[in-house]
Amino acid sequence: MTFSFARRIQHAPASFLGELFRVSADPSIISFAGGLPSSALIDAEGLSGAARDVFATDPRTALQYSTTDGYLPLREYIAARYRRRLGVPATAGEIQITNGSQQCLDLFAKIFLNAGDRVGMERPGYLGAIEAFSLYEPVFETVRLDSEGPDPGAFEKMLTETPVKFFYGIPNSQNPSGCTYSPGRRREIAGILEGTDTIFYEDDAFGELFFDGKARLPVKRLLPGQAVISGSFSKITAPGMRIGWMYAPQEILMAFNTAKQAADLHSNFLCQQILHRYLTTHDLDAHVQKIVAVYGRQCRLMCDLFDDLMPTLSRTTPEGGMFLTATLPAGLHAMKVFEEGIRQKVAVLPGMPFFVDGGGTGMIRLNFSNADEEKINEGMHRLAGVIKRLS
Amino acid sequence: MTFSFARRIQHAPASFLGELFRVSADPSIISFAGGLPSSALIDAEGLSGAARDVFATDPRTALQYSTTDGYLPLREYIAARYRRRLGVPATAGEIQITNGSQQCLDLFAKIFLNAGDRVGMERPGYLGAIEAFSLYEPVFETVRLDSEGPDPGAFEKMLTETPVKFFYGIPNSQNPSGCTYSPGRRREIAGILEGTDTIFYEDDAFGELFFDGKARLPVKRLLPGQAVISGSFSKITAPGMRIGWMYAPQEILMAFNTAKQAADLHSNFLCQQILHRYLTTHDLDAHVQKIVAVYGRQCRLMCDLFDDLMPTLSRTTPEGGMFLTATLPAGLHAMKVFEEGIRQKVAVLPGMPFFVDGGGTGMIRLNFSNADEEKINEGMHRLAGVIKRLS
Repeated sequence: MTFSFARRIQHAPASFLGELFRVSADPSIISFAGGLPSSALIDAEGLSGAARDVFATDPRTALQYSTTDGYLPLREYIAARYRRRLGVPATAGEIQITNGSQQCLDLFAKIFLNAGDRVGMERPGYLGAIEAFSLYEPVFETVRLDSEGPDPGAFEKMLTETPVKFFYGIPNSQNPSGCTYSPGRRREIAGILEGTDTIFYEDDAFGELFFDGKARLPVKRLLPGQAVISGSFSKITAPGMRIGWMYAPQEILMAFNTAKQAADLHSNFLCQQILHRYLTTHDLDAHVQKIVAVYGRQCRLMCDLFDDLMPTLSRTTPEGGMFLTATLPAGLHAMKVFEEGIRQKVAVLPGMPFFVDGGGTGMIRLNFSNADEEKINEGMHRLAGVIKRLS
Repeated sequence: MTFSFARRIQHAPASFLGELFRVSADPSIISFAGGLPSSALIDAEGLSGAARDVFATDPRTALQYSTTDGYLPLREYIAARYRRRLGVPATAGEIQITNGSQQCLDLFAKIFLNAGDRVGMERPGYLGAIEAFSLYEPVFETVRLDSEGPDPGAFEKMLTETPVKFFYGIPNSQNPSGCTYSPGRRREIAGILEGTDTIFYEDDAFGELFFDGKARLPVKRLLPGQAVISGSFSKITAPGMRIGWMYAPQEILMAFNTAKQAADLHSNFLCQQILHRYLTTHDLDAHVQKIVAVYGRQCRLMCDLFDDLMPTLSRTTPEGGMFLTATLPAGLHAMKVFEEGIRQKVAVLPGMPFFVDGGGTGMIRLNFSNADEEKINEGMHRLAGVIKRLS
């Protein structure tokens, strides 16, 4: 029989994320293409102990159905950490647990977007967000990123000419670019948004991962009732548990909760309890410091190798996070670099999936969190060979 | 500011599920309103051991990102169990892991429904499905259930007059009614569907829970390329891990996988591994037999108490599952029974959320899995008092 799929899925952009995870699985390839945190930095022992404690305490409750909003003590932990780290007056009532922050993208789009509604994004923008939002058939408006954040002129033009329902951005160590909005640009953007009906959706997957260990000013502090933040334990604890959250004004959270319930009732309750147990018996700050020290070294090494081995490419300079991007020499197509890279056993991600308008053919994204220094060294030499061969 | 939500969420039916979980949390109330399996029958010790094994083997892989389709050995286990139990030629390639079978409802609707598309449901129909599907703004067509399944005349009329994209049904111990389609009705329904473009969506959350321990003929065996089955470990292992699956033809599964990836990348990988470890080191059949023996006794007791204490109500006679429904005396509104019930510390679920067309005011649903015999005895006496008081 012929299956008559919905329009939204017929027009879904071809997915790169799945392909990435497959490429990452070939052990002979050094992959800078994925978005995995370092496996070596997952505190398996600590989480194992936390799991043991949960199973020893009240396992049948942890294994039973639970409430949609999530495990209250975990939501309280998240809210308290926001108050302390970012100086925002978060309460547990403003936190909804999700399956990683990817689910925030889906549910937020679900409660806000009618087909044809406008959504603002950075250019380049996070491909997971493009994939999630696309299924609600919006019209994307993009604002060019410079080294300080979204171009303010273009941002203002977007809001006056074709108001968007929300602007989705990653102010801290943006994916893919690795750029961080400057404090001034945050204030400028917030100033432009103030008084409009456009929500600022602040994806903060990387805010804990600044190499200098310092938190940056969240846009939500400048626009408390008009901004939401999504967060995740994937980069600071473990992605395999799929625990993230949405921090939003209660009116938004009520609709979000309805959508969450319809989507899967609630997130894995056992892992919410394990995670909470872990967080309250271990020093997360110390663990994050350890991650940041390693990522900082790996990032520096990758940048240095870029400059030494591939001086014809220009690159971004991350202050944190897990990614940087490089601009290829004119005329060199990113797909060629990807394909020749796979042959030479080094994977980078072509820029195209980060552009909703056909751009990105001159850009590649590299991940520096998941390969250790030895692999970065070897992989960058392989990549330099690829670039040389193609130039 | 004013939030301009999407149309789909503005029209979402008021949710009862969340309210239910809240009511279930008050320990002084004996709740027949929820849909929880028995906590006492969760094999916490077995799952604890499985978790210990996973953490002792390769925890960093279990805690890392993984593939969207799910843990291959778990998908192979599910496929093998289908082949053995139901005689369908399932392969791992036709299985996608989801967050419980609730997520199947969301993702299946997402890939098939444009706003205004028609969806067929049983009347009464599962409220979790109504909630999930509603967010894609379909037009519901319902087919009355009799004691053998959907009324064949109405079913055929639905397909000829206003073809639906898919018909969603629960042939085994339907929720809410507790009815099981007869073998003849399954063949009749499949015969009507054959050659049409309507998919049969077979929700099989309860197929393992027949009191006689025997599997029933799946509609998918009669319509291999035209039917999908969703399944769940929630009722046979533990709901808190949120692991279910979709079993579907590969063309459907490809679109489903795209939607899954956009929704949350993949389901909790740690729990997929724990579950697989548990299933391959324990005798699931023996565990299910234990569950079924208890639920069978509890169901019988509830039915007997109905007949003894509330002879003015008529009720269904489940062959398995976790629910039955009762029809109230004419003129008695289910909401009155619910409200007076809460006052008398016994919760039942009014029928209205199972109807998309305003029906159900004369129906209540009762769950017999989550209260032990003592509670069922006490709760049914309280309910009889409520009915007496209101009649």
